[in-house]
Amino acid sequence: MSAKMQNENFMKEMEEVNDYTYIEGGVCAAEGFTASGLNCGLNSNPDKNDLCMIYSERPCVTAAVYTTNKVKGAPVIVTKRNLIKTGGMAQAVIANSKNANTCNADGEEKAERMCELAAAALGIKPEEVVVASTGVIGQILPMEPIEAHVEELAKGLSRDGNLRAVNAIMTTDTVKKEAAVTFKIGGVPCRLGGMAKGSGMIHPNMATTLNFITTDAAISQPLLQKALDEIVKVTYNCLSIDGDTSTNDMVCVMANGLAGNPLIDAEDEAYACIRQALYLVMRDLTKMLAKDGEGATRLITCTVTGAPDQDTAITVAKSVIRSPLVKCMIFGRDANWGRVLCAIGYAEADFDINRMEVDVESAAGKIAVCRGNALILPFSEEEAAKLLSEDEITVHVNLNQGEAKGTAWGCDLTYDYVKINGDYRS
Amino acid sequence: MSAKMQNENFMKEMEEVNDYTYIEGGVCAAEGFTASGLNCGLNSNPDKNDLCMIYSERPCVTAAVYTTNKVKGAPVIVTKRNLIKTGGMAQAVIANSKNANTCNADGEEKAERMCELAAAALGIKPEEVVVASTGVIGQILPMEPIEAHVEELAKGLSRDGNLRAVNAIMTTDTVKKEAAVTFKIGGVPCRLGGMAKGSGMIHPNMATTLNFITTDAAISQPLLQKALDEIVKVTYNCLSIDGDTSTNDMVCVMANGLAGNPLIDAEDEAYACIRQALYLVMRDLTKMLAKDGEGATRLITCTVTGAPDQDTAITVAKSVIRSPLVKCMIFGRDANWGRVLCAIGYAEADFDINRMEVDVESAAGKIAVCRGNALILPFSEEEAAKLLSEDEITVHVNLNQGEAKGTAWGCDLTYDYVKINGDYRS
Repeated sequence: MSAKMQNENFMKEMEEVNDYTYIEGGVCAAEGFTASGLNCGLNSNPDKNDLCMIYSERPCVTAAVYTTNKVKGAPVIVTKRNLIKTGGMAQAVIANSKNANTCNADGEEKAERMCELAAAALGIKPEEVVVASTGVIGQILPMEPIEAHVEELAKGLSRDGNLRAVNAIMTTDTVKKEAAVTFKIGGVPCRLGGMAKGSGMIHPNMATTLNFITTDAAISQPLLQKALDEIVKVTYNCLSIDGDTSTNDMVCVMANGLAGNPLIDAEDEAYACIRQALYLVMRDLTKMLAKDGEGATRLITCTVTGAPDQDTAITVAKSVIRSPLVKCMIFGRDANWGRVLCAIGYAEADFDINRMEVDVESAAGKIAVCRGNALILPFSEEEAAKLLSEDEITVHVNLNQGEAKGTAWGCDLTYDYVKINGDYRS
Repeated sequence: MSAKMQNENFMKEMEEVNDYTYIEGGVCAAEGFTASGLNCGLNSNPDKNDLCMIYSERPCVTAAVYTTNKVKGAPVIVTKRNLIKTGGMAQAVIANSKNANTCNADGEEKAERMCELAAAALGIKPEEVVVASTGVIGQILPMEPIEAHVEELAKGLSRDGNLRAVNAIMTTDTVKKEAAVTFKIGGVPCRLGGMAKGSGMIHPNMATTLNFITTDAAISQPLLQKALDEIVKVTYNCLSIDGDTSTNDMVCVMANGLAGNPLIDAEDEAYACIRQALYLVMRDLTKMLAKDGEGATRLITCTVTGAPDQDTAITVAKSVIRSPLVKCMIFGRDANWGRVLCAIGYAEADFDINRMEVDVESAAGKIAVCRGNALILPFSEEEAAKLLSEDEITVHVNLNQGEAKGTAWGCDLTYDYVKINGDYRS
């Protein structure tokens, strides 16, 4: 356990690794993947796509994690079932926005129908399709618009379809979220890229994020699942917009092996390479999700170091990020540091509160807030106001009682969050 | 354990008990208690009190519960120490608002000084004083205003001082929160009343609520503590405004025995009587706290029945009340029922999601939302809009898998919450 934690703490930041390079292309960055997106009519705005497809020319080893909510969207249930049926193999994704196809009596039937339609258009089996939906819960999903457009969707698949695809999964998202890197495994160039949606309702365990990641590296299914599980824990699950956990979350990684590297089937250096790539892409998508939280004006990051173990580090970091009072304080640029200490203090973890050092940092500088004994140091209000006026604020907590670390990401709580969510369905 | 839970579930609502009558007087409703409040200058608004005192003419058996936050306000630490020193006896309370006296290097010293000042003015021992502070964390508490006014405060003690006292502990509270009942123990009339403050930052485990309750019933200290622990669990700890848990919370109950009832020193019928009185007063204060949440426009209640055990019932009820998306939805009068099911679904408890029935009710009527299988029933938007336009909204959840029940209280999330907390210190 402790070896594993150490391992997880070994994820390197981009600045520390030279052999990974960001590239364009999102879910189409990896060889053999094409994507497509269009407006099929679920969304009344014809300029906004609402249906997308991702396709690999070769069947993919596929790993996924799903929402832990007891109320599960029908597409989550169907995708899970499909991947069990195929032993973790898939060749395509079909996803829609505007309607979550959740809490409806005919939900599973319709999610299965979406797989059948995609499979028929692509000449694969229905169980080789990953299906996902996001949008309003509890409204009947109209199938006609989807039925009428799947052929066109499949025909539209192209190597540069990634932007049309990501546009189709956006709901209250204000920016497209894509990231991709290239790296080498045993000298062979590989690519890994992905797209994400999610804005409100995001919390530990991912709520209403859809994430599709593709790679051309060759890796065994159990190891791909293991890497995903490890990285989800330190990326998406360290994200909090509002503390709600949705019914439809899914992170899905597909690996088609077209890069031609020797199959990764042991936890060796090659495994560490692809896991690092997955970390970089998922961490970047996580930060984009945090920054684009509903109504958000600021990205808040909390780094915790010196923790007795990684779980404690993550718990403390999330507690700060999740606190509505901290979120409002940062929105209001109000240096009410007591709220930060307060949020650390109610984190449900076992540590000594009296040894911590707390700093708040932004592009404008760094302020020492606390140096032990949970006491707040004197500070310049002017300097604090300047610091808090930046778009990205980081709270650094050093618990000074161990070697473990963790980071969580979130955003401020604003009038617009309330506005968006007071009238979401219209 | 299960017998105890059953017991806790036996708390009767006011409508079901004839032998309890609401009375005026708050903390002065019980015999032998006087109170006082004034503006000593901590608050620059001379019309707002900021310092108060409660006094009993006879030493009181005293029980208390405190914040579970690791960062504890100095007054919490000092009060805890005092009550240990006296074996749970106290005769007075001194409390201030505007400054939490927390996270300051000289905090404990100053909290002790407040006890000494009160004790000197009242002719009692410093350790017989309960001290509490609420307000901004991490700002040095100026002692001069308090030193200069304690004599006047003690002189001002009177049987009708309760409103001046409750005014002094209010921060962002918009209404005074008081409740009191009279009831009989073995034919002897007794009284129990209290006052509370708290508005933002209230959550399970009470954050930034101060609650002082007084009674003239005679009861042993261990049983008073037991009754308080039991009732806190089903009242204050079922309250959530924003999910933050403060550093300075305290609920303190003082019993001076002046009613003349035979001492309650066993868990008999007399014990059940006073516990019921404590429940009614604390439940009413809890509802007042919920309704007066920062920026709140609506009281949201969630009742859970048919739960396998009380912990599950409370966990589910709190999950609904705490969800920012449910809170925004109710603020926006938007019948987005999926969010309610979603919040039930991510409650961290072990139950079968497929058996539940969910209804939403207000003075305007009742709508059946779900009848098993986590599916949302068709409903009239018009009827829903009418229902949601009322000030008090109740979500009823019947899990249909046991006999236990629980209730949680909260409020909607509004623009004003963000406004108040974006600029709290000014």
